[in-house]
Amino acid sequence: MNPLAQQNPHRRFNPLKREWVLVSPHRTQRPWQGQVEKPVQPAALAYDPDCYLCPGNLRAGGLRTDNYTSTYVFENDFAALKPDAPRFLDDEDGKGLLIAEGESGVCRVLCFSPRHDLTLAKMEVADIRKVVDLWDAQTQELGARDDIQYVQVFENRGAMMGASNPHPHGQVWASRSIPNEAVLEQAAQAAYLQEHGCCLLCAYREMEMARGERIVATNASFVALVPFWAVWPFEVMILPSRHVADLAAMTDAERDDLAAILKTVTATYDKVFDTPFPYSMGLHPQPFDENEHPEWHFHLHFYPPLLRSATVRKFMVGFELLGSPQRDITPESAAETLRQASLR
Amino acid sequence: MNPLAQQNPHRRFNPLKREWVLVSPHRTQRPWQGQVEKPVQPAALAYDPDCYLCPGNLRAGGLRTDNYTSTYVFENDFAALKPDAPRFLDDEDGKGLLIAEGESGVCRVLCFSPRHDLTLAKMEVADIRKVVDLWDAQTQELGARDDIQYVQVFENRGAMMGASNPHPHGQVWASRSIPNEAVLEQAAQAAYLQEHGCCLLCAYREMEMARGERIVATNASFVALVPFWAVWPFEVMILPSRHVADLAAMTDAERDDLAAILKTVTATYDKVFDTPFPYSMGLHPQPFDENEHPEWHFHLHFYPPLLRSATVRKFMVGFELLGSPQRDITPESAAETLRQASLR
Ligand SMILES: O=P(O)(O)O[C@H]1O[C@H](CO)[C@@H](O)[C@H](O)[C@H]1O
Ligand SMILES: O=P(O)(O)O[C@H]1O[C@H](CO)[C@@H](O)[C@H](O)[C@H]1O
Repeated sequence: MNPLAQQNPHRRFNPLKREWVLVSPHRTQRPWQGQVEKPVQPAALAYDPDCYLCPGNLRAGGLRTDNYTSTYVFENDFAALKPDAPRFLDDEDGKGLLIAEGESGVCRVLCFSPRHDLTLAKMEVADIRKVVDLWDAQTQELGARDDIQYVQVFENRGAMMGASNPHPHGQVWASRSIPNEAVLEQAAQAAYLQEHGCCLLCAYREMEMARGERIVATNASFVALVPFWAVWPFEVMILPSRHVADLAAMTDAERDDLAAILKTVTATYDKVFDTPFPYSMGLHPQPFDENEHPEWHFHLHFYPPLLRSATVRKFMVGFELLGSPQRDITPESAAETLRQASLR
Repeated sequence: MNPLAQQNPHRRFNPLKREWVLVSPHRTQRPWQGQVEKPVQPAALAYDPDCYLCPGNLRAGGLRTDNYTSTYVFENDFAALKPDAPRFLDDEDGKGLLIAEGESGVCRVLCFSPRHDLTLAKMEVADIRKVVDLWDAQTQELGARDDIQYVQVFENRGAMMGASNPHPHGQVWASRSIPNEAVLEQAAQAAYLQEHGCCLLCAYREMEMARGERIVATNASFVALVPFWAVWPFEVMILPSRHVADLAAMTDAERDDLAAILKTVTATYDKVFDTPFPYSMGLHPQPFDENEHPEWHFHLHFYPPLLRSATVRKFMVGFELLGSPQRDITPESAAETLRQASLR
């Protein structure tokens, strides 16, 4: 990495979204007088009678969660998307300024474990493997449907990231349309393949492996790294070494390796500030539209908000919302912090 | 507005950024068991000896704030951008995947009033007018520089939006490069002008005035409305009626009208949940690069996070970060809530 960049304001290009992030490495000395979050309390009970995701309990919608023993899926009682949403396409003025379109889809809740007090970081790799298989089964089932073009699996972890329940769970939102982020990533990957004759993320992975400075962890099938263009302080991307477009294309050994690196990344996060590390994470498989996607390289994003301590977060506000995202610590120093934490 | 859209999941197109927002009107019944914010405490003291923005006080950087009596500007002691940042352009691998570029600029703090306990909502229109003139002077001064291509004036209001101090103030970040959001808006406005032979926001403003359902307030020179494609629950855009590209092009009467509508919008916000309403807001003038910008229509964005009450916010997390932004209440019902609040 250019030493000038380590100490001076600069911007970096995100080739997956084709936009820029502003990096201000000198700004970490800034004293913080702003909002301090409540310290995160890990869930203490293995079974919480008041948790609607614990086996056998009643949910707000009036339904009861089954007495499950491994992973568990149910339709979101307050789904943002519904399969039977009416189709319509409105362009009220005919000038392209008031365009609305009916959007259908499926929203499900994915419980990772019956144990209320676990997290991905604390689960056994064999049990995380069951979560990986669940993600795959859901993606395949929903992706095969005619009325679904994208399957977004994600987890909001921690109250700071909008999770309303500490019980280990994620969600899947599958939609008729391809969401903005996947549209951007698809276009960027397709253009790169066209121009360079190789996959963007294959080429990127190779370069990062050779350099090492942004690598957080590796195993036989995956690498976890802080992207060169990371926006969140401790953002991580997990990339498979093999060019695969979704979980369905992965071997048994690769799924085990994915489970293992998920445990490494989440456990490392928890060590950074000795606190259950909040984040939003999600899978980016290929779109399930009518096209082939030779350009698409499967990956996962982790977007964690903490910056300085267990209670001081990065705010994506003013300049970030109106201009460009901005970060203080460099991706290289974030990767170093994560590597050090992983050794503790 | 299509009645189907008022009750069913749909997506709307944002022609200024050319991306989509998912709207789930039926989802407002969802019970909220997630994070509840601390209620906002308005600043009580007209002068706070511990506030580094109050006249005459010492700042963390070691400098002293002047004994100012109206508005006041100083260089940010912990600036994200610096004028003398070294220029460099790196493309480490030559494959467009590790692009970094030295970025220079200027970051200043803009105090709106010496009074610690005021906010835009509580200030006299005549004093807000001085803030408008300050924004204009800063934009003109910085925009005229060879090493500046964009001038982003913004305000982070409230601890929830990362403001570290309740003293009424905003910031200006002026940069050599044009930030992502302005790049998107410029391209969209230029393409619209090319295709339709008229300004995107002129055409949009006219349609909204004719419809009325998303209008929050108007005066002789401005309209405040909830955009058809709003992402934040109570997002508002302020548009000048006349096609002007920046504050410099505005008449004396227009500046007074801008001050007046700023007071209306911020005071209305405070009435919605009877609390000082947090938000990030910012000005979007034309870029100050070497090109003419006949396509550019000056506007302001308000991005407030509150959703259900003074303490329950919208979380832009999981699906929003990995897919597309999602909202629960429709822009039409948000506008109705704001209109009702303004009458209280
Ligand atoms: O006002 P401050 O303390 O400089 O900083 C605040 O606004 C900046 C610009 O939007 C953000 O980058 C910071 O995350 C936020 O805390
Ligand atoms: O998990 P919930 O309660 O459905 O909702 C959470 O995740 C959703 C998807 O990212 C967001 O739209 C909500 O703002 C957030 O609170």
